[in-house]
Amino acid sequence: MQGQKSFDELQKMIRQFVDERDWNQFHNPKDLSISMSLEAAEVLEHFQWKNDEEMAEYIKTHKEDIGEELADVLYWVLLLANKIDTDLSEAFQKKMQKNAAKYPIEKAKGNHKKYTEHAA
Amino acid sequence: MQGQKSFDELQKMIRQFVDERDWNQFHNPKDLSISMSLEAAEVLEHFQWKNDEEMAEYIKTHKEDIGEELADVLYWVLLLANKIDTDLSEAFQKKMQKNAAKYPIEKAKGNHKKYTEHAA
Amino acid sequence: MQGQKSFDELQKMIRQFVDERDWNQFHNPKDLSISMSLEAAEVLEHFQWKNDEEMAEYIKTHKEDIGEELADVLYWVLLLANKIDTDLSEAFQKKMQKNAAKYPIEKAKGNHKKYTEHAA
Amino acid sequence: MQGQKSFDELQKMIRQFVDERDWNQFHNPKDLSISMSLEAAEVLEHFQWKNDEEMAEYIKTHKEDIGEELADVLYWVLLLANKIDTDLSEAFQKKMQKNAAKYPIEKAKGNHKKYTEHAA
Repeated sequence: MQGQKSFDELQKMIRQFVDERDWNQFHNPKDLSISMSLEAAEVLEHFQWKNDEEMAEYIKTHKEDIGEELADVLYWVLLLANKIDTDLSEAFQKKMQKNAAKYPIEKAKGNHKKYTEHAA
Repeated sequence: MQGQKSFDELQKMIRQFVDERDWNQFHNPKDLSISMSLEAAEVLEHFQWKNDEEMAEYIKTHKEDIGEELADVLYWVLLLANKIDTDLSEAFQKKMQKNAAKYPIEKAKGNHKKYTEHAA
Repeated sequence: MQGQKSFDELQKMIRQFVDERDWNQFHNPKDLSISMSLEAAEVLEHFQWKNDEEMAEYIKTHKEDIGEELADVLYWVLLLANKIDTDLSEAFQKKMQKNAAKYPIEKAKGNHKKYTEHAA
Repeated sequence: MQGQKSFDELQKMIRQFVDERDWNQFHNPKDLSISMSLEAAEVLEHFQWKNDEEMAEYIKTHKEDIGEELADVLYWVLLLANKIDTDLSEAFQKKMQKNAAKYPIEKAKGNHKKYTEHAA
């Protein structure tokens, strides 16, 4: 439980878990993506029908539940990246560089329009 | 771009990116979760209407696109974890231990029923 | 555009459209459900990162776009209902009766807790 | 259960149900869209990890469950259409005409490429 792991280490944990159970046979990209989507929906469900104050209050007492469901999304993200044989850490860093170039600080700072464009 | 980063490092990259642009003001858990869901849907869209062979063929030529969209999902997972102040690496490892206890190898091995139960 | 249609008439329109193009061969429940989910995500995308005032303003000028995407969701709902051979109009009316019994007016009136329970 | 209803009649049922409970105060387009997405995800969940034969088998014994969840999606589609003040039956018929013009029978017939283009 101790200390920060790299993606590589987490993916190794997943691969071992899956291999020991011989579950790789069930993994196709479509169903893996569905799982990722469904887990993302479960995170979203926590915040539905709540305003900002209600969410802040809710998070205080449900941090662990939400964290567990974020971990579920992460599980499928890592498994899918492994399945399509992509280096997710590298893809992530590339994407961050692309975003930094696309949204230069001086233009993007506090800019809601740039923000929603970015976040879409 | 070089080498495996820990979650902590990736979250630091995101925090810096967001802080420099003063975008934290736009981040509430509901919209962050929506973003995560929408990016997960974009990954799923790649595999829609394709059978196993078509997916295998497609992945060969679209590895980078899909990787970039998995990185987008990851971005929101990390940002949300940061927002609710959860240690995602720890949550992930806890979840893996929970799953290992719930699906002992001898019972789960190659077992489709156990698998779908796990994956639901 | 020629008045209110019943479900039955709309489903007939879809069946004819699909049959004329010989597209039924591509329809399996999993991909149909994925399509429905992806179209629902597109509706949601319209409202992301907007507060109540921004949504009200946005709806004024995007009524037709949103309506078209709601029609897309409806298309897949009707097609799926047809695929699994369910009378959707009947299922809907049954569900409304169930909800009416579960949330009696006197207890549910203006009750946020009952509401979120219902809406979850 | 009393025959085929028009959209107008179903929307009237929903409006009455909502008004009697004074629940309109909780309805904003973002949360309504989230609800629609979450219900669509629940439908999708039924078909996850199943191949064509398993789905066919499953549908036989779960027709009512799936129908009820399709009715839930429909509920939010109708409520949203009402909220943004759009005539959904008209939007649907317009969309069908647009699709018929875009995918002429002679070109689209049995054509998987045209199909996936249409269905995306």
